[in-house]
Amino acid sequence: MTIQNQLTQMLEIEHPILLAPMDLVSGGKLAAAVTQAGGLGLLGGGYGDGDWIDREWQRAGNARIGCGFITWSLAKRPEILERTLAHRPAAVMLSFGDPRPFAPAIHKAGARLICQVQTVAQAREAAEAGADIIVAQGTEAGGHGMAEPLFVLLPQVIDACPGAVVVAAGGLADGRGLAAAMMLGAQGVMMGTRFYASQEAEGNPEAKRRIVEAQAGATVRSIVFDLSRAIRWPGAYTGRLLRNRHAETWLGRESELAARMDEVAREYAAARERGDFDVAGVIAGEACALIHDIPSAREIVERIATEAERLIRSQAAALS
Amino acid sequence: MTIQNQLTQMLEIEHPILLAPMDLVSGGKLAAAVTQAGGLGLLGGGYGDGDWIDREWQRAGNARIGCGFITWSLAKRPEILERTLAHRPAAVMLSFGDPRPFAPAIHKAGARLICQVQTVAQAREAAEAGADIIVAQGTEAGGHGMAEPLFVLLPQVIDACPGAVVVAAGGLADGRGLAAAMMLGAQGVMMGTRFYASQEAEGNPEAKRRIVEAQAGATVRSIVFDLSRAIRWPGAYTGRLLRNRHAETWLGRESELAARMDEVAREYAAARERGDFDVAGVIAGEACALIHDIPSAREIVERIATEAERLIRSQAAALS
Repeated sequence: MTIQNQLTQMLEIEHPILLAPMDLVSGGKLAAAVTQAGGLGLLGGGYGDGDWIDREWQRAGNARIGCGFITWSLAKRPEILERTLAHRPAAVMLSFGDPRPFAPAIHKAGARLICQVQTVAQAREAAEAGADIIVAQGTEAGGHGMAEPLFVLLPQVIDACPGAVVVAAGGLADGRGLAAAMMLGAQGVMMGTRFYASQEAEGNPEAKRRIVEAQAGATVRSIVFDLSRAIRWPGAYTGRLLRNRHAETWLGRESELAARMDEVAREYAAARERGDFDVAGVIAGEACALIHDIPSAREIVERIATEAERLIRSQAAALS
Repeated sequence: MTIQNQLTQMLEIEHPILLAPMDLVSGGKLAAAVTQAGGLGLLGGGYGDGDWIDREWQRAGNARIGCGFITWSLAKRPEILERTLAHRPAAVMLSFGDPRPFAPAIHKAGARLICQVQTVAQAREAAEAGADIIVAQGTEAGGHGMAEPLFVLLPQVIDACPGAVVVAAGGLADGRGLAAAMMLGAQGVMMGTRFYASQEAEGNPEAKRRIVEAQAGATVRSIVFDLSRAIRWPGAYTGRLLRNRHAETWLGRESELAARMDEVAREYAAARERGDFDVAGVIAGEACALIHDIPSAREIVERIATEAERLIRSQAAALS
């Protein structure tokens, strides 16, 4: 028997494992592979590029997938949501902003609304907005997020939102993480970095190699990344990336970086173009320290599910 | 049946729950109460005050307890270890420094050596030093520690030290935390803040009240606390406390604080003396957000064990 609960029933999936909608990295190929392995794949809709979304949906073929957006960016181009809903997504995930303006259209289209939160207050707002699923994202996560570690955030979100279907994210890469998250009250997990280091993920092979090589403490959460791309995020959020020469250069000198933003952003964009990851950032979470290979998405999903089930069973058997 | 494993067998305890040796807060009364409830109580030997240790061992009566030390401080007064071993401790815990000089004497006295670590490298060193038990302490913990969150640190320590008996610490306050830590590979938990908010803990009732009142994000990890007490800790470590007026005043102004250290330390000591916790710090971890009452230590231990067993059983039952 596999892990079955409200989450798997609601999403009609075999394993409670969701692909984080990593901007540009979670393309149609990866999203489809996660769905076909029994989880749910979400396209990395990110800031909202309609052409990219249309193309990646095509590449996903007939797979039942969803799409994630950066909410404050989607608010600037709401027409992208309509365009996405035309693909009949299984779910739409909103992170970093007020989900309320978008909830009615998502539900009307028959999609599930997934809201990712970083604080207990945001979790309450998501529940009130009608979220079908709340993703509690710990500070361990790659990319944008906040400061609260998952071990403390997750049970607080569970307590604050009785009856909600909650998924854990941040710092998780294996079946141990899924089993542990379930003990804290989650019904499943969302993983990004683990699927970045997969065969099907978009993204430079050198970036994947660096994730596999990364050890404990290899990442840092800061605003250097956004300043280096000349993107102004709402103040509460920072971005976690692999430490590299560029990060070491600017950490602690953020004011100076902001003053020289346009100049640095040109150099940064050029480095990204040529695949120079000593300058361009590899967006990855603390889970990179638990990732040692680049298998297929199917193998990742099956490993996680099998290990979690085995752990829960063996710990229960040891009790009796 | 209760949770029984190598940890409980090695320490001859009923529940895999250890009291963190909180400096001055984990006195003989609390340590004895945790042991009598089926866990293991550890006196907060801290920097190493022989008279305090003798007195608290008396107050613990016949209870089988241990004692914890700040290793770099113990190294300055090694005679305190001999004095402690004369009490025939069940275990001696060493945190924040090289355990090797002390390991032979501890083992010769028939006590178990517990080493608390904050990084994978420290865990390997502890295993090589002959630690019987390794405590992996996440950044969520109150008091001194480092930056790695428990969800990522713990499985890394497990992987790096095959066969080691590992205990999880930091951010844990209930049976959910114990069950989750076990899924990540720990054999038990060590809790501090949860037992601070107990009837038997030493410490000001107002400090306990503030822990109960504290919400998410109420703590901060910094060097303000050590500078304010004019104690110079090794650079790698910071201390987590409840945010208060004093912390808000000095966070980000650490250089200025260091320059005015003696003056501030006098004011800080006076505030501590009069129980003014707007200035004096309440040492507490992120788990304070999960703590809502001040029960007896026995009730805390029983709640944790019962909840963890129930969770493991019910998750396993849901599989089949």
